[in-house]
Amino acid sequence: MTPIFFNRDEGVDLANEASNAKCTVHFEPGNFEVVVDKGSTLLEAAMQAGVRLIAACGGSGTCGTCKVIVEDGEVETVRTAKLSDDEFKRGIRQACQTTAMTDVKVYVPVESRLETAVLSRERKTAATAAWGEGALASGWRFSPPLAKYCVRLPPPSINDNVSDLSRLLRGLKEDFRLSNMTVDFDVVKKLPGALREKDWQVTVTTLVTAIDAKPSATRRPRLVNVEPGDTRHTHYSLAVDIGTTTVKGQLLDLNRGRIVAESAEYNGQRPYGADVITRITYCQKPGGLEKLQTAVVETINGILDKMLEKAKVNRNDIGHLSVAGNTTMIQIFLGIDPKYIRLSPYTPVATYLPPVKAATLGVKVADHVYLSAFPLVASYIGGDITAGVVAAGMHQTKKLTYYIDIGTNGQIVIGNQDWMVTAACSAGPAFEGGEIKSGMIAANGAIEGCDIDPKTLEPTIGVIGNEKAKGICGSGLINAVAELLEKGIIGRDGHFDANLRSPRVRHGEDGYEYVLAYADETQTGKDIAVTEIDIDNLMRAKAAMYAGFRTLVKSVGLAPEDIEQIIIAGAFGSYINVDRAIMIGLLPDLPRDRFIFIGNGSLMGARLADFSTDIIDEVRRTARSMTNFELSENADFMNNYVAALFLPHTNCAEFATVCERLPAATTGRG
Amino acid sequence: MTPIFFNRDEGVDLANEASNAKCTVHFEPGNFEVVVDKGSTLLEAAMQAGVRLIAACGGSGTCGTCKVIVEDGEVETVRTAKLSDDEFKRGIRQACQTTAMTDVKVYVPVESRLETAVLSRERKTAATAAWGEGALASGWRFSPPLAKYCVRLPPPSINDNVSDLSRLLRGLKEDFRLSNMTVDFDVVKKLPGALREKDWQVTVTTLVTAIDAKPSATRRPRLVNVEPGDTRHTHYSLAVDIGTTTVKGQLLDLNRGRIVAESAEYNGQRPYGADVITRITYCQKPGGLEKLQTAVVETINGILDKMLEKAKVNRNDIGHLSVAGNTTMIQIFLGIDPKYIRLSPYTPVATYLPPVKAATLGVKVADHVYLSAFPLVASYIGGDITAGVVAAGMHQTKKLTYYIDIGTNGQIVIGNQDWMVTAACSAGPAFEGGEIKSGMIAANGAIEGCDIDPKTLEPTIGVIGNEKAKGICGSGLINAVAELLEKGIIGRDGHFDANLRSPRVRHGEDGYEYVLAYADETQTGKDIAVTEIDIDNLMRAKAAMYAGFRTLVKSVGLAPEDIEQIIIAGAFGSYINVDRAIMIGLLPDLPRDRFIFIGNGSLMGARLADFSTDIIDEVRRTARSMTNFELSENADFMNNYVAALFLPHTNCAEFATVCERLPAATTGRG
Repeated sequence: MTPIFFNRDEGVDLANEASNAKCTVHFEPGNFEVVVDKGSTLLEAAMQAGVRLIAACGGSGTCGTCKVIVEDGEVETVRTAKLSDDEFKRGIRQACQTTAMTDVKVYVPVESRLETAVLSRERKTAATAAWGEGALASGWRFSPPLAKYCVRLPPPSINDNVSDLSRLLRGLKEDFRLSNMTVDFDVVKKLPGALREKDWQVTVTTLVTAIDAKPSATRRPRLVNVEPGDTRHTHYSLAVDIGTTTVKGQLLDLNRGRIVAESAEYNGQRPYGADVITRITYCQKPGGLEKLQTAVVETINGILDKMLEKAKVNRNDIGHLSVAGNTTMIQIFLGIDPKYIRLSPYTPVATYLPPVKAATLGVKVADHVYLSAFPLVASYIGGDITAGVVAAGMHQTKKLTYYIDIGTNGQIVIGNQDWMVTAACSAGPAFEGGEIKSGMIAANGAIEGCDIDPKTLEPTIGVIGNEKAKGICGSGLINAVAELLEKGIIGRDGHFDANLRSPRVRHGEDGYEYVLAYADETQTGKDIAVTEIDIDNLMRAKAAMYAGFRTLVKSVGLAPEDIEQIIIAGAFGSYINVDRAIMIGLLPDLPRDRFIFIGNGSLMGARLADFSTDIIDEVRRTARSMTNFELSENADFMNNYVAALFLPHTNCAEFATVCERLPAATTGRG
Repeated sequence: MTPIFFNRDEGVDLANEASNAKCTVHFEPGNFEVVVDKGSTLLEAAMQAGVRLIAACGGSGTCGTCKVIVEDGEVETVRTAKLSDDEFKRGIRQACQTTAMTDVKVYVPVESRLETAVLSRERKTAATAAWGEGALASGWRFSPPLAKYCVRLPPPSINDNVSDLSRLLRGLKEDFRLSNMTVDFDVVKKLPGALREKDWQVTVTTLVTAIDAKPSATRRPRLVNVEPGDTRHTHYSLAVDIGTTTVKGQLLDLNRGRIVAESAEYNGQRPYGADVITRITYCQKPGGLEKLQTAVVETINGILDKMLEKAKVNRNDIGHLSVAGNTTMIQIFLGIDPKYIRLSPYTPVATYLPPVKAATLGVKVADHVYLSAFPLVASYIGGDITAGVVAAGMHQTKKLTYYIDIGTNGQIVIGNQDWMVTAACSAGPAFEGGEIKSGMIAANGAIEGCDIDPKTLEPTIGVIGNEKAKGICGSGLINAVAELLEKGIIGRDGHFDANLRSPRVRHGEDGYEYVLAYADETQTGKDIAVTEIDIDNLMRAKAAMYAGFRTLVKSVGLAPEDIEQIIIAGAFGSYINVDRAIMIGLLPDLPRDRFIFIGNGSLMGARLADFSTDIIDEVRRTARSMTNFELSENADFMNNYVAALFLPHTNCAEFATVCERLPAATTGRG
């Protein structure tokens, strides 16, 4: 049976009629099937079925990354400019714009599939890594804010029949000099049974949170749990980094100071939008915030399940969650409308978020478990940055440091132990493969490496997962553009040299382009090329990051060469080639030995905070020492941005080591 | 149709068969009807139908106060010694021992009915009473721990875009010098919307609890609520006294320091047992604790509804609950198993109970509302006593004071501003009409007043509600026995003078008795008499109270005559005649002007605590200054108890003003 398509605009309104009817949607490959309400979009059906589509724009129809082939059944569809005539004829539809009207069979082409295998690719922290592995911060003691104390109390007698809680507190004071505690009501509720179950021996769990830790002289640990007997041997916590794209978790053994399992998964919010702005917009729809909140909670529950399974740890032995993420991710996770993050003057809800019981958010841990979110600085300088800055030890070095987390919302920090300035740079999605013709996220099949032979102009490409290419990711694009520049294929203005005689350089649909892989070498059966529009997008993205850096540097009366170390954080940063990034002018042209990769600073900070109360204090102090600059309405930033819209920069003196390597003809199409 | 009775022991086991069948139980008078599972007891049915039975023993069949007449339908019953042959023949059954097997019609005789009209009888606090009315405590400022502050904040700008919470805290610091606050997570969640709804004007609510108040120098108020605009004009709280028998509440206007409504209702737990011991026992049944917890919460919700209605106050404008009650009542209300209160060495769960969100217990108030329970001293010296002692100003007087709350679990305190000793006296149910042949609680129809003509030996009785008598209440029994003693009808040993020639004095079923009202003068159609067994029960009860007093006095090296004031608290105490109570030896024989009635000290303390943070501090300090004596295993107490098993006492010198008024023949049946 040939599928029948209705254009939704032409069809009758079936909304009411459809409300009770059900359709089965079958997805291939993978043989996934799901029953949905008639009129549901195929994107909704895919999400329910667990079929991962890229769907970068969150279902608004503008990105064209959720294309599927409807093989059988009736659908209604809205055709956008993202579908060519040829695609439309072949039955290709945007899943977000297409609703099932009957049972439907759908095929998901490789370019729309989101693979998870790559998530474990990031620089490994061994499952038995020591507590501070990878961190640059030093001097902190191993002193987890979640602590267990085992006491054996004298049983009550008629001459000593103080209350159960008084007896417990007296014992904790005598044995451990613990006092001035806040006691959670639920502990009181469990107390009579717990004390008597193992003959007046109990283990209590106490927690110091960032909020409670102010100031440390009057710190009041919370008594958050009590268990019968000696349970000190099971003492775990969970560190989580909630990224816009990916959620990563580490299960921590607080006795041994070790990571016992780690796991990662794409953030379940991705189908609702690739970046924080589309997610914030989605939250404004009825039920939108709840959907996104549920999506990320399910992602966390999923990685938690995997880690518990892997490490053979009991769910109830987890006593705390330390969570870092950007401001939008954290507010959505906590169920707080992120609306005002997006609206000028960009106010987050709170710099220091009170701890909250994780179970009340839907996280599957015991009821007594608190979740502590990292303090943040501003709407676009989140807890992921404060976590990373402290993990990198930036708060304790005299060296003038440039901390950079590259991404759609790039975040930069300049300073040292005495002061810090921060800014967010709205770079756009190019670094994540967004709005790039053959762009994709750094998953299996993405072209990452690229070398171009200076004589033949033929490329050698490296593909993630060593499979046939599906597209090009952000770091691949940087490498490719740097090569094109260095080999003189494009000029410093980002335009192609029209005089080159190579079949790789051609005039395609979107103007000049360079073909990295021909159709027969790809999974998609289509050429993968870098277009002038792609290069322009990348230049805008890198210009935003560099202009942010220049603006901050100048604001504190310094010059780029004063920077003594550059710390590159973030998943994207992990795969960047420093030399290539300098070549295109993304990173400043400084001696290469000043660059340090820290990887996922956010997760590292979350882990350290669960290992040391010192870190919590330092994060708090550091967050307070940060001054944020709003670049969006800053004239200096705009000037720096325009100056950076060149490769590597309009001012060649600022990129001396790059410019001396470039061919004489420095402008394309000359 | 004549009802058919099965004796449960003889019947077949119908438990399984009955599980799905339903029966309709119809109650008269009042035309109440309810559908229950076949096999439910008539007591359960009555509770569901809202029919109030006295049911003092909690359904164990031992008290005989839930007798009903089964007029139609089939029931199964267990016959106990509490039913006479005559009663059994007339269709009278114990509701708790009788299960419905078909639809049933039941008549509730007057002596089993629990009337509510009397609840409002207690010494009135006018609905417009000033904040401290009735309290003896002085020197405290009107400074409610629940406070509202209205701030208008400067809107954020690009040069001042701190987080919403930082802006709020900055405003509160500038305008009110408020700082060092703990912020509830839910406030953060509401904040973005609240701030912007009324153009950056909000009203915040802060709360100081007894726990947070320690020590006051480092007090950290909680920020518990935020509302858009200026809401200071609606600022209420609720004070509740949870008594074993009765729950009383007052709705407080915290702006004006006034009680705007009050209400009382029998504690919904009553059908599960009249005293704390039967309730604790009931909690040990599966689901028992939950049932009792739900019952008292429903009672509180009921009186809350009435008060809101009466005062035209919006439920969401209540911001705090201050609750006092004995240790058992509070633990059950909070859902904490009271098991160990009853078992030696009698340990309560906690002296200082952490505040808890009232809505989590089922109380129908807004989610942000905390409930603070009064600190307690011991399992049988509860928050009702600490509340009352402070309301009575005992903690701030130099006068040596004896504070007494008479009841099944009598509680006594001796001391002054510098020290206090406490003890609980297990007096038994006689003061509440329990285990008294014609006993009943102090409800309409209870004989309370009694004068006996010394010549004719004829009584003049006073009945609550000015209706025909149904029985005699505790205070009535004290008055009657005092009269019988003073008029020489009984001797100092509590036995009747068998030589008296009066038709009122006769030998009945239970031995000698004095008839207060003949059948034709009563609602029950039965004689109401005071028996020798009743007198014996009362003597044991009063002996326990007096022995407790004597033991405490001696323990601190004092004599009874050193007591400078006696404060009588509690519902029962409100109606006691001091002279009559001294006559029987319940209260010490001290000048009558040293006795002060404080009424419901527990409720008064709860109210004062909601009006003044000073009171919270003082309650905390006072609770800590109290030393509790366990009398149950105290040899001195036993000696004092035996010495007090005489009217007024074995030692006449200790009751000089009483003994000089007694007739020469001081022992009965002489």
